[in-house]
Amino acid sequence: MGMIGGSLEAFIGAVHRRGAALDGEIELVCGAFSSNPEKSKATGEALYLDPSRVYGSFQEMILTEKNLPEGERMDFVSIVTPNHVHFEAAKFAIENGFHVVMDKPLTLNMEEAKALKPIVENSGLLFALTHNYTGYPMVKEARAIVKSGAIGKVRKVIVEYPQGWLSQLVEATGQKQAAWRTDPARCGAAGGVGDIGTHAENLAEYITGLKITELCADLTIFVEGRQLDDDANILLRFDNGAKGILHNSQICNGEENDLNIRVYGEFGGLKWRQMEPNTLELTNQENGSRIIRTGVGNLSKHAQAHTRQPAGHPEGYVETFANIYRNFAFALRARWGTENRAVAVGNLGGTQDNADAYIPEIHDFPGIDDGLRGMAFINTVVKSNATENKWTKFEI
Amino acid sequence: MGMIGGSLEAFIGAVHRRGAALDGEIELVCGAFSSNPEKSKATGEALYLDPSRVYGSFQEMILTEKNLPEGERMDFVSIVTPNHVHFEAAKFAIENGFHVVMDKPLTLNMEEAKALKPIVENSGLLFALTHNYTGYPMVKEARAIVKSGAIGKVRKVIVEYPQGWLSQLVEATGQKQAAWRTDPARCGAAGGVGDIGTHAENLAEYITGLKITELCADLTIFVEGRQLDDDANILLRFDNGAKGILHNSQICNGEENDLNIRVYGEFGGLKWRQMEPNTLELTNQENGSRIIRTGVGNLSKHAQAHTRQPAGHPEGYVETFANIYRNFAFALRARWGTENRAVAVGNLGGTQDNADAYIPEIHDFPGIDDGLRGMAFINTVVKSNATENKWTKFEI
Amino acid sequence: MGMIGGSLEAFIGAVHRRGAALDGEIELVCGAFSSNPEKSKATGEALYLDPSRVYGSFQEMILTEKNLPEGERMDFVSIVTPNHVHFEAAKFAIENGFHVVMDKPLTLNMEEAKALKPIVENSGLLFALTHNYTGYPMVKEARAIVKSGAIGKVRKVIVEYPQGWLSQLVEATGQKQAAWRTDPARCGAAGGVGDIGTHAENLAEYITGLKITELCADLTIFVEGRQLDDDANILLRFDNGAKGILHNSQICNGEENDLNIRVYGEFGGLKWRQMEPNTLELTNQENGSRIIRTGVGNLSKHAQAHTRQPAGHPEGYVETFANIYRNFAFALRARWGTENRAVAVGNLGGTQDNADAYIPEIHDFPGIDDGLRGMAFINTVVKSNATENKWTKFEI
Amino acid sequence: MGMIGGSLEAFIGAVHRRGAALDGEIELVCGAFSSNPEKSKATGEALYLDPSRVYGSFQEMILTEKNLPEGERMDFVSIVTPNHVHFEAAKFAIENGFHVVMDKPLTLNMEEAKALKPIVENSGLLFALTHNYTGYPMVKEARAIVKSGAIGKVRKVIVEYPQGWLSQLVEATGQKQAAWRTDPARCGAAGGVGDIGTHAENLAEYITGLKITELCADLTIFVEGRQLDDDANILLRFDNGAKGILHNSQICNGEENDLNIRVYGEFGGLKWRQMEPNTLELTNQENGSRIIRTGVGNLSKHAQAHTRQPAGHPEGYVETFANIYRNFAFALRARWGTENRAVAVGNLGGTQDNADAYIPEIHDFPGIDDGLRGMAFINTVVKSNATENKWTKFEI
Repeated sequence: MGMIGGSLEAFIGAVHRRGAALDGEIELVCGAFSSNPEKSKATGEALYLDPSRVYGSFQEMILTEKNLPEGERMDFVSIVTPNHVHFEAAKFAIENGFHVVMDKPLTLNMEEAKALKPIVENSGLLFALTHNYTGYPMVKEARAIVKSGAIGKVRKVIVEYPQGWLSQLVEATGQKQAAWRTDPARCGAAGGVGDIGTHAENLAEYITGLKITELCADLTIFVEGRQLDDDANILLRFDNGAKGILHNSQICNGEENDLNIRVYGEFGGLKWRQMEPNTLELTNQENGSRIIRTGVGNLSKHAQAHTRQPAGHPEGYVETFANIYRNFAFALRARWGTENRAVAVGNLGGTQDNADAYIPEIHDFPGIDDGLRGMAFINTVVKSNATENKWTKFEI
Repeated sequence: MGMIGGSLEAFIGAVHRRGAALDGEIELVCGAFSSNPEKSKATGEALYLDPSRVYGSFQEMILTEKNLPEGERMDFVSIVTPNHVHFEAAKFAIENGFHVVMDKPLTLNMEEAKALKPIVENSGLLFALTHNYTGYPMVKEARAIVKSGAIGKVRKVIVEYPQGWLSQLVEATGQKQAAWRTDPARCGAAGGVGDIGTHAENLAEYITGLKITELCADLTIFVEGRQLDDDANILLRFDNGAKGILHNSQICNGEENDLNIRVYGEFGGLKWRQMEPNTLELTNQENGSRIIRTGVGNLSKHAQAHTRQPAGHPEGYVETFANIYRNFAFALRARWGTENRAVAVGNLGGTQDNADAYIPEIHDFPGIDDGLRGMAFINTVVKSNATENKWTKFEI
Repeated sequence: MGMIGGSLEAFIGAVHRRGAALDGEIELVCGAFSSNPEKSKATGEALYLDPSRVYGSFQEMILTEKNLPEGERMDFVSIVTPNHVHFEAAKFAIENGFHVVMDKPLTLNMEEAKALKPIVENSGLLFALTHNYTGYPMVKEARAIVKSGAIGKVRKVIVEYPQGWLSQLVEATGQKQAAWRTDPARCGAAGGVGDIGTHAENLAEYITGLKITELCADLTIFVEGRQLDDDANILLRFDNGAKGILHNSQICNGEENDLNIRVYGEFGGLKWRQMEPNTLELTNQENGSRIIRTGVGNLSKHAQAHTRQPAGHPEGYVETFANIYRNFAFALRARWGTENRAVAVGNLGGTQDNADAYIPEIHDFPGIDDGLRGMAFINTVVKSNATENKWTKFEI
Repeated sequence: MGMIGGSLEAFIGAVHRRGAALDGEIELVCGAFSSNPEKSKATGEALYLDPSRVYGSFQEMILTEKNLPEGERMDFVSIVTPNHVHFEAAKFAIENGFHVVMDKPLTLNMEEAKALKPIVENSGLLFALTHNYTGYPMVKEARAIVKSGAIGKVRKVIVEYPQGWLSQLVEATGQKQAAWRTDPARCGAAGGVGDIGTHAENLAEYITGLKITELCADLTIFVEGRQLDDDANILLRFDNGAKGILHNSQICNGEENDLNIRVYGEFGGLKWRQMEPNTLELTNQENGSRIIRTGVGNLSKHAQAHTRQPAGHPEGYVETFANIYRNFAFALRARWGTENRAVAVGNLGGTQDNADAYIPEIHDFPGIDDGLRGMAFINTVVKSNATENKWTKFEI
């Protein structure tokens, strides 16, 4: 794998590298870590890369690597830049024949997103988008439970993503993470809605299997001097008649990263919280709640295949990236027709029955359509916020 | 005290009786427990009342008691009937010179509410409405913290009241509690919004000291055959520019009575959950959370005055009614110019400094204005639900 | 009921009064609230008692009330004095024909305890000891689950009672509660072990149905200048071969009143915590945990009969006393052959089937044998602490 | 790094490999994964190793690698075999000049442990023992808080390690993990005490900085047919006069891996639970509890240096191994005089001040003395269990 973006001061680049490294299936062999060649070089050195494969631009990397012999050149790129670089980097990689793993959101705006979709689909190449939170075993379990019909038809969905780190104008203090996330030029038309709201939207649709059809949004910039929304309250309607609420915020002072979801159906409900991700609560009016835990009991194959430790040994954030990268690696090898050797050491997880098989439906990862819906969500929210009409259709 | 409503099968009547009895300040001396004289009689007997003071109608009770000598006749009435009786019972009691404690919501509809307000205010009599949840010590503490400025200007309020008991059409099975709460004739224009949404609205305004100015509501009847809303998703705007979300539901399958609130200000936040009422979390971006607990440390006088046990001895639902009834009794005696003797036995709670004084600001209880705002909330929500405009003004 | 002890500054007297008043089944009619007649008088006045029935000593009260006509005189006494008065007060009451409810521990020492047992048993009178924590609905449920065999043979019991309020030498500051609880003359041979360790012992034996057969104790006085143990670590062995740990402490700085128990059997386990008493966790190795909640689902009749509110309306400490007093009242009327009228208003709780019947096995309360075992526990712990032998037999 | 043990079916080998890989500082270059050469070969292949560096025995690996040129040969060995192989593998590695990372417990018995200590110490080589739980940031923070004096002199320590996975005789069903852990020949004189009790002992001593001086143990084999203890209840005494309780169990049906500790000092307490490792509670009698969270606020450098993600992105079990391996790598380079390049990419964590420096006191890892105390703990517990004397000295 070659990395685009992710220099020393970046946050998400290191997360991707750790996720990719965890299972021993993927090796970082080259990178264009910054548009500043000095920074890129320093990063490559710190990562023990061959200096000849640390590049000053992603174009240089892609064109150079393309000419390396098969087996030596990178197999795919991992794009972890700010949003405004996503489209051109992904397009360039694909057009030069490289598979792509990319951080979310998909692109800077809807136009780029719509343009990228046919590029990906016509290329025949693999494309993953790291909506990582759907990589948690208990999220997989929740989806499997909804699908099984155990809670009946879904009626109500409440999904929240409160953070507090932008409670003050930290972007004015030189905090790099805050700076680009609050800058329309690098981040797009929405702030928090794009950064974390899309995760909430993706999580809700992933678990329920439903699609948002219309919404009503109230966006706010609470911190004076900020350019993009730091708070969003949104009413949702889904394609099966379910109703919902999505709110995300960066000004919930004292909240860390408290993505959470509750889904209520006719016969029961599900509650999950990212900050304690190994627990899933299955509520029921007649029998009370059952606590479902990673690694305990008779879980779905979907959950088992994304669990590495025995029960009670907490797994966390880095494993969600590892799950996407590992599944991507498996899909890649399935393309090549090579076997997944690591399957044997438990990297596919699961029961004896399926431990030695790659099953696309189970070893899934988010892709271009998740990305497109994310961009449409941003667009619809911004549009809804600007109108006095109650409901705005969710359109792609 | 004399009780109107609250026969043997009723739920809330027994709660009021227990709350009134807890501190030994109030004695139940008579009642018109049902419009069915047989039922009223049976209830009075079960409660060991003098049969001559168990009445067949509230009119009979009020007129008869009125003629008893002072010191013997009841001092006030407690009205615990379904909503459609509230107005006429309260009006009749007040017009005959009796103070009133009444269950919420105030009346069946806005017209009655508006008519009741001047009746109460011109009477010079005491009037309490049992929005009991604001009687919890940690709710008092939350209000005191907001007032102190410790969390700065309030920016965001999330208040929820999920229940699951109406997930099926239980009103069709003869369940009495469900039957009247889903019947427009006895309950009013809204179902869940009136029954529990008003508690959420009252709680949010009580803690923050803010007023809702406009809202956007999406009501649903999820259970086929039901006549009134069993789910509400509502966006809120407050008079200081704060934004918020209120949702209440009776179809959150598996939820018990999970009223909860989160309030975020510039410098911190507050989180409270009715089902574990003795804990209040004070969040802070820089320092992490502090856990505030009933009876622990240097709490506000407001919290102390409503706490009966040492820390770690859980207090619950019945104490919230007791707090309203006790404060009402104190206010009554202050009217009479008699001392509150029970102060000495700790019934006022609080530190040495204030244990022997009745302080209206501290020993507060909800009244006619809370009731009127509750009715206006119901009205505004129903109106908002019926329009395609995003925002509907909250008007009284 | 007449009360012995429980003057204005006392803690537990007010708790008993509230517990007795809650259900409207018991009326406080007289009291000897203090050995100081002035204090007794002031307390009686604050409680609105007839001054002629406020006495200067328990002897005076008992002898005077005895001569009042039946129907007017008190039916039983409630003894809430410090431990050193328990024996003589109970003995005097019983010998004069009054039933007794008494706070724990039973007596000042084992000799008194052994002497009291035949007095109680030969009198034919009712005797209740307020080991109140076994009055929680979820403790009743836990006991019922163990009895049902659902968790199989019990193997391990961990019961804890940590408090932190004696972390400093507060008895030297004039704190009345601390003063008598750390004074051997008023409290007995043990401090924390008698005050709270006995609650832990009683809870463990009540839930498991097992008896402690031997133990190994390590007592400590951590706070310099204190006269009695403020910390106890104890290994337990039970009569079925189960093993256990009991520890109680008053120097766990920051702990409130965190009585809790875990019971593990062959097929599952139970976890309960007094500070969140409406929740019981049923653990299971194969299926994960089930959350059992007061008022939710198909609970045992034992739990139902001690629950007053619908699910999610928290019940707490005062209700545990109310449960003992109410069951005592029912037992009393069963003696008299009178019906329990309040049954009809739901004071017996329970399903339709058993709501109108008093069932001694379900409406149970702790008695003389619980008290005697508590005293034997104190004795055995003190003896074990003094020896270098590992195990000391639990003997009565 | 070269690995000894850790074939395909092993549990802990994969954990070590993931921990070592996470930060990109260590590369697995060779292995003797099993005493069965076929299994070793298959494992090496699954891990993409050069077949020429997959060995049939650890002796072969060590002797062969020793002769490879510097820069090519492995730098250290990681020993992840069952306990009975530890001693000879570590001895052979050290005697041939290789640094060692080894899983706990140190050896099969005390004799081996005592023999290994001088071998390690005289070699001048680095030795790490993966008592991984002390690698959690909040454990580092707890230790720093105790050291700071914030909770005063430690009085009471309660440390627990309940599991439920051996509630039935699973070793008879061919479960490999259960089989060797319950076999004295491969596991040593104790079962659960060696496997998990030593973790509890290590955690308690690490956080408090105290040493256990004597103890009183009650071991049980609850499951018929088992050869080693599956439950231990132990009273502890520490060198500063503190008292404590340690219990570990494998028959707490329904418990996963619930290692937890509570430490109470004169002025406050600390509570930590491995299953939710990113939270530390600081209790205080006067002010209530503070919640300390990974990544939030002004934490100690010790905690910061072992944290990889921003607050609210859960870190777990694999990071504890990564922390040991990374610190070991840093110590290794400090030996070599080479800089830690990865420091620059945040792998040392910490504030700007110390992010570019390796500080042994902060980047610590468990070593030979932890291992020796662990073995002495096992020995003392077994001895105490066999005697009727209450206290057995903890002797090395």
